[in-house]
Amino acid sequence: MMADEMKNLGFARLDISRGERTGLPETIYCPGKTTEQLIGILRAFQEKGLAVLGTRCSQDQANAVCVSQLPVKYDATAHTLLLEGRRPHPLPGAVAVCTGGTADLPVAEEAARTAEYFGAQVERFYDVGVAGLHRLLNSIDSIRRDQVVIAVAGMEGALGSVIAGLVKSPVIAVPTSVGYGASFHGLAPLLSMLNSCAEGLSVVNIDNGFGAAVQACRILNLLHHHHE
Amino acid sequence: MMADEMKNLGFARLDISRGERTGLPETIYCPGKTTEQLIGILRAFQEKGLAVLGTRCSQDQANAVCVSQLPVKYDATAHTLLLEGRRPHPLPGAVAVCTGGTADLPVAEEAARTAEYFGAQVERFYDVGVAGLHRLLNSIDSIRRDQVVIAVAGMEGALGSVIAGLVKSPVIAVPTSVGYGASFHGLAPLLSMLNSCAEGLSVVNIDNGFGAAVQACRILNLLHHHHE
Amino acid sequence: MMADEMKNLGFARLDISRGERTGLPETIYCPGKTTEQLIGILRAFQEKGLAVLGTRCSQDQANAVCVSQLPVKYDATAHTLLLEGRRPHPLPGAVAVCTGGTADLPVAEEAARTAEYFGAQVERFYDVGVAGLHRLLNSIDSIRRDQVVIAVAGMEGALGSVIAGLVKSPVIAVPTSVGYGASFHGLAPLLSMLNSCAEGLSVVNIDNGFGAAVQACRILNLLHHHHE
Amino acid sequence: MMADEMKNLGFARLDISRGERTGLPETIYCPGKTTEQLIGILRAFQEKGLAVLGTRCSQDQANAVCVSQLPVKYDATAHTLLLEGRRPHPLPGAVAVCTGGTADLPVAEEAARTAEYFGAQVERFYDVGVAGLHRLLNSIDSIRRDQVVIAVAGMEGALGSVIAGLVKSPVIAVPTSVGYGASFHGLAPLLSMLNSCAEGLSVVNIDNGFGAAVQACRILNLLHHHHE
Amino acid sequence: MMADEMKNLGFARLDISRGERTGLPETIYCPGKTTEQLIGILRAFQEKGLAVLGTRCSQDQANAVCVSQLPVKYDATAHTLLLEGRRPHPLPGAVAVCTGGTADLPVAEEAARTAEYFGAQVERFYDVGVAGLHRLLNSIDSIRRDQVVIAVAGMEGALGSVIAGLVKSPVIAVPTSVGYGASFHGLAPLLSMLNSCAEGLSVVNIDNGFGAAVQACRILNLLHHHHE
Amino acid sequence: MMADEMKNLGFARLDISRGERTGLPETIYCPGKTTEQLIGILRAFQEKGLAVLGTRCSQDQANAVCVSQLPVKYDATAHTLLLEGRRPHPLPGAVAVCTGGTADLPVAEEAARTAEYFGAQVERFYDVGVAGLHRLLNSIDSIRRDQVVIAVAGMEGALGSVIAGLVKSPVIAVPTSVGYGASFHGLAPLLSMLNSCAEGLSVVNIDNGFGAAVQACRILNLLHHHHE
Amino acid sequence: MMADEMKNLGFARLDISRGERTGLPETIYCPGKTTEQLIGILRAFQEKGLAVLGTRCSQDQANAVCVSQLPVKYDATAHTLLLEGRRPHPLPGAVAVCTGGTADLPVAEEAARTAEYFGAQVERFYDVGVAGLHRLLNSIDSIRRDQVVIAVAGMEGALGSVIAGLVKSPVIAVPTSVGYGASFHGLAPLLSMLNSCAEGLSVVNIDNGFGAAVQACRILNLLHHHHE
Amino acid sequence: MMADEMKNLGFARLDISRGERTGLPETIYCPGKTTEQLIGILRAFQEKGLAVLGTRCSQDQANAVCVSQLPVKYDATAHTLLLEGRRPHPLPGAVAVCTGGTADLPVAEEAARTAEYFGAQVERFYDVGVAGLHRLLNSIDSIRRDQVVIAVAGMEGALGSVIAGLVKSPVIAVPTSVGYGASFHGLAPLLSMLNSCAEGLSVVNIDNGFGAAVQACRILNLLHHHHE
Repeated sequence: MMADEMKNLGFARLDISRGERTGLPETIYCPGKTTEQLIGILRAFQEKGLAVLGTRCSQDQANAVCVSQLPVKYDATAHTLLLEGRRPHPLPGAVAVCTGGTADLPVAEEAARTAEYFGAQVERFYDVGVAGLHRLLNSIDSIRRDQVVIAVAGMEGALGSVIAGLVKSPVIAVPTSVGYGASFHGLAPLLSMLNSCAEGLSVVNIDNGFGAAVQACRILNLLHHHHE
Repeated sequence: MMADEMKNLGFARLDISRGERTGLPETIYCPGKTTEQLIGILRAFQEKGLAVLGTRCSQDQANAVCVSQLPVKYDATAHTLLLEGRRPHPLPGAVAVCTGGTADLPVAEEAARTAEYFGAQVERFYDVGVAGLHRLLNSIDSIRRDQVVIAVAGMEGALGSVIAGLVKSPVIAVPTSVGYGASFHGLAPLLSMLNSCAEGLSVVNIDNGFGAAVQACRILNLLHHHHE
Repeated sequence: MMADEMKNLGFARLDISRGERTGLPETIYCPGKTTEQLIGILRAFQEKGLAVLGTRCSQDQANAVCVSQLPVKYDATAHTLLLEGRRPHPLPGAVAVCTGGTADLPVAEEAARTAEYFGAQVERFYDVGVAGLHRLLNSIDSIRRDQVVIAVAGMEGALGSVIAGLVKSPVIAVPTSVGYGASFHGLAPLLSMLNSCAEGLSVVNIDNGFGAAVQACRILNLLHHHHE
Repeated sequence: MMADEMKNLGFARLDISRGERTGLPETIYCPGKTTEQLIGILRAFQEKGLAVLGTRCSQDQANAVCVSQLPVKYDATAHTLLLEGRRPHPLPGAVAVCTGGTADLPVAEEAARTAEYFGAQVERFYDVGVAGLHRLLNSIDSIRRDQVVIAVAGMEGALGSVIAGLVKSPVIAVPTSVGYGASFHGLAPLLSMLNSCAEGLSVVNIDNGFGAAVQACRILNLLHHHHE
Repeated sequence: MMADEMKNLGFARLDISRGERTGLPETIYCPGKTTEQLIGILRAFQEKGLAVLGTRCSQDQANAVCVSQLPVKYDATAHTLLLEGRRPHPLPGAVAVCTGGTADLPVAEEAARTAEYFGAQVERFYDVGVAGLHRLLNSIDSIRRDQVVIAVAGMEGALGSVIAGLVKSPVIAVPTSVGYGASFHGLAPLLSMLNSCAEGLSVVNIDNGFGAAVQACRILNLLHHHHE
Repeated sequence: MMADEMKNLGFARLDISRGERTGLPETIYCPGKTTEQLIGILRAFQEKGLAVLGTRCSQDQANAVCVSQLPVKYDATAHTLLLEGRRPHPLPGAVAVCTGGTADLPVAEEAARTAEYFGAQVERFYDVGVAGLHRLLNSIDSIRRDQVVIAVAGMEGALGSVIAGLVKSPVIAVPTSVGYGASFHGLAPLLSMLNSCAEGLSVVNIDNGFGAAVQACRILNLLHHHHE
Repeated sequence: MMADEMKNLGFARLDISRGERTGLPETIYCPGKTTEQLIGILRAFQEKGLAVLGTRCSQDQANAVCVSQLPVKYDATAHTLLLEGRRPHPLPGAVAVCTGGTADLPVAEEAARTAEYFGAQVERFYDVGVAGLHRLLNSIDSIRRDQVVIAVAGMEGALGSVIAGLVKSPVIAVPTSVGYGASFHGLAPLLSMLNSCAEGLSVVNIDNGFGAAVQACRILNLLHHHHE
Repeated sequence: MMADEMKNLGFARLDISRGERTGLPETIYCPGKTTEQLIGILRAFQEKGLAVLGTRCSQDQANAVCVSQLPVKYDATAHTLLLEGRRPHPLPGAVAVCTGGTADLPVAEEAARTAEYFGAQVERFYDVGVAGLHRLLNSIDSIRRDQVVIAVAGMEGALGSVIAGLVKSPVIAVPTSVGYGASFHGLAPLLSMLNSCAEGLSVVNIDNGFGAAVQACRILNLLHHHHE
């Protein structure tokens, strides 16, 4: 029951068939991997004709991979590296990715790029933080039309609470380490989101745009299965 | 656009029409409310013919309400108080509520009772903690069939990670304050769940079974809308 | 220069003339004081014909004082005990006291009663938390007309940020210990308020309604001096 | 009601008319902005003939902007970048900015420069920490004459308490990250200031000289409105 | 070399000759001891004709001991229980025990009573907190004349810094758990005292009046030895 | 009894005979040591003909030592530097070293290399984290055959709990600082492991592969003594 | 492979055959269990003729069980409840249980009683804390003769480090919540033990005497298997 | 009364006559000071013919000062910079400076160099940590002869407790940031020292060798005054 097609590269156990098994394709967490390891993993996917997304990929890693002539695209804001290839079926519905400020963009784009790689349609609502509430209220009708909301915010992290009180959809809140002093590297928005007075909010790790995207796409995937 | 039918009782602003607006009916957070306030709120719902669920209701509050002859049922494990009345439409799909140990039951039952009140079908998988992995593996095929999983665990809180690695559905993890010493009242499982090496996990506040149920039902509600 | 009229009761050094010196009259912090000490202090003020306010006064302390036939009024929500007597001149302007939820009332009323004792006019805007934004937006025009805003909120403490983004006045934010789990007894709203993305917000200690009132009245007092 | 003149530059939503609306003009938070973004924002203000202040501007950012020939002045202690242009009306009253030690200067100057940009008169009282009390006592009569006091201190952060006990004005305390070891990057003075035994003190985030200045100027602005 | 006369009572190892060895006589830490154990220990000292001091002795423990007809005196503020008997030689010099507020009295009196039991002369300066600096300045000349200062303060704990900047003697700072909210049970004054900008300050555990007294008397004891 | 052969190099007190006394030979903690100190220590062991292991040795330190012509081998993953020489007797039994992910390798290899230096047989089971449970279950029969298990994991640190529930041997859990955000540099897996719901688990410091190896070899050493 | 004889009582899944499988018999964690549940579980073991140990059993629980006429013995210090019956084979070797002070006794006795129930021989060395080093040095030769050491200490928790530096055996350190103030309920000794400068120490949760005993007996069990 | 001779350099207020007033001469805290400021301050002392000690002086600062031809000596371990000149009278007695390990040397030498500058005689006892107790016991008789002990230790910080239990003198404990992982930058030894089970210990900030020296010399200074 638990057997699976797993390509062992010596330094890592790839999970090539994961796409079929869990509904969402494999991704590569780049930190700590050498150029050789990274290229080796990418080639393994390329041989299968599969696309794959690397996350938290540094500019240096991206540069090194580009030299290898692999068909990759690097997004310097999201820190994602996309190997072109066969992509999964599109997911039904759409994800709204919202941020409190412009400094939250890297985390938001990590979420957006990951969700797009998984086949989701993404709508971006950036710089709609609660300090200027009109910005959020101007966009709220569009946000309401999406099936899942990812709310990315640092500092006091109130964005998630305010949105969750205004929409019916599940809201996935991502605290960011944007801030200083008593932010304690994202602890403040993390606690804030966990203690939301609004309902319909669940939280992922600080700066974990990727994790929010996976959760959002697992939810969209449910719609997919119900459609078929 | 933001107007709504809200019954003002002086001490609180009820949100009677919330069921129609957000897809999930109103609930009552009981702590800090006097018997008079609680009965007053219940009567307001009763007049509308609506059911309503009170959460974190103490045995003393429940006893006091029972004297009032209101048609209520108290669940001493979940600490929920249900006023009988018109219930929402059933939600599609089902929620699996899993616990690590028996001490997590009150939180799990808060989640289960809340989800049932919202119209969800709930399957319970209790005492399937990772210290005896066979217990979880014996149940995993059933858990996989449910659309959303709520994983309730105290102590080291590993249950969420292990389940999220075994299912396709979104997993909502609820850390509990069960434990002692370096649990620091639930901080240990909270951090553990936020740092899960598994994907597809989002987290609510410590002991917040209610919040997990709302999030689960918002997700099921998406299926509902896609069905119609 | 630093000499002042100070009545020494053995167990405490009263500061009877403080009203003239600092513009705000003396108050009594009741916790830890015995009934005898409390009555002794109250009598010292009564002999001068002065009113005085006791804060954080328990029901038991209040009961014990009432037996003494001193002309006092106890507010069981604010936990304040007011000795009737000569009051300070009214302060110009008004203070808006806002709360996120009904559970924040004791802290809000401590702020309101203290400000009223200092001679301020107080407007109360309770249960206007950000989870139901329409409640706040319905009141915002009135809040804007007041000179100072005290924003009292527990849980994620977002109320201060949202209000500070909507008004011109200085906002004094009071985190409360209302909440559970990852609230860590008010740490969550405290950090949230300190990290506000909105400008014009300063913060006092958790549950410190009294401190917020003093700060608000020091501000109103500035207007007073400019008027004269 | 919530519409406002907002210039959208693609990467940020400027709030040009904010000066008229809130009484205090816009500022630019520089961290994380590219040279191009920074220059773009400055040009937008320059086109309107408005002055604007950039805060937390690094020496590198300042150098890059200077090349652009925009009429800016950089303060290397305060890390502020001022674009010359039409300034707001002067505010009534004055702000006293006090520091415990010389290492607190950058935060104090951020506060002072910001308040001056907002039109306030600023008096500086630096290196008056409580370890050598005579330094503070020598200056206290001058400090007392100002309408608002900003007390900037790291290490044990006692300056705010001592000043608040000696003046009638509202004191805004700014903890700084100056210190080491059990300072925990400013946690020690932050907690110290929040727990002040003195009344009339409210607190902003660690190192947040800017926030203290905004709060001080909102207070001075009240006097302004009462004057007219 | 390490042998000593130690009376073994089964449940504890008494150190009767400790007075001669370390210069300071034995004390008894009462918490967790049963009445029988406490009386047993006291009788062992009585048989030797020695005085002994019990610290953190509850009212219940004291009542139970009194029934035993042992010649003891209980101090309900300091929570000390003194068995009469042969006392150590007086120590040279004097200790100044200062407190910020009246709520710090139990800790201060624990320090004072312990130092007196060890043979030290104690001067008390209570309620001289920094919020009303004149109270401290009025007493500072007397405090300066003592050889060691114990500064007891809760809330923001600034008393130690201010005194250490005004005297030549070593200052031992005792943070107390007096306070609420962001005091976090004494963490705030503890960190404050450890980060003192003043020199000549060392710190003991929260509420540890006893420990401060031992340290003070070890210092006085040095003078003693130099005298002989 | 406590005398021992200790070579004093001026800057450190070597413990050459420690192998005979405690059953496990000396090691060198390299951080903070200059090249000269390091070479001096190595030569002292070389003169005795003894092997010795340096831990946490940086690449720079290793390079500098290599120039000295001492017979050393550097492991860049484990950061260990082995001086060749007389080795201790082999230990009975074997240690299983398991990791959650590939990023835990440096800590795991520190443990493995240290145990091997002490004479233990080591089996490596890497990348068997609980997010993909089948990987662990595939290896569990082999793990069960070893006498001691070292479980190295970052992020949520659940590996230790799951293994301890599946084997009879003592499990030594090593939390790693692998992770980000709410990992708080290894606090999350540390708390997780301390709160394990499984029995038979004890924990060492974050990233302390060395400490785990010492504990494992002290255990194996017991078998040794029982054999002889 | 993972099937086992598990008696399902509805409220809990007993693991009767666990003794044969893991080498150590089942125990019952009593907190949160009702009298009915507790008696039910005990009867299930009694029917099999097996002994079983309940830990953290309150005096009230013990009293209630005694009424049931089950053959149990309650230890009010260790808070253990032993049902008489067939016991496991004795384990080889012995465990030394050491404490810093008398207040650590409940945790130490939990460890000792649990180890004895598992069949281990236990030697107790109580009140040997490092403040009076001679007490420990007097016992160290006996401690050295035991195969495993359990070091139980609160306050600064130095006992583990000192012992681990003096013996060859593995030391299992148990921090206790004994202490006050900056002990933060056992955090101080926990951190102290994790950071031990001595080698050969691993740590269990605060107050977890039970967990230390399991780990010690897993180690002794290894000797057993090697003997046979 | 509070007037003093204070040379104002614009950027700092020097306290030249402090030596006469407090018994201990001025020192300079170098971090954050520019080369110009540092040289300016040194010249001010040189003009008076006074020696002065700079602490936490970086190698770069020292190099820059040396170029200025001022008669200074830099200690690269202690990070102290001594300007030659008239020194204070020697203090009576001696200070023992002890360290747990060699990595604590910089903090210990900061203490030692500062005490020597103040006129104290210093005895160094380095690398006497509790993991190898014989090293401490070999030196304890010498340590006992000194009037004050400074115990410097990182990791678990047990050195202070063990020494305080073995000597009569006051012990000043300095936690260091030496360690990793759960040391949390010195929090572990700080808490350990504050919770010492031994009496006669007081604590200064993490890595604050300077503060310990001041406290030690204030104590020695008492002897001085008693002698004369």
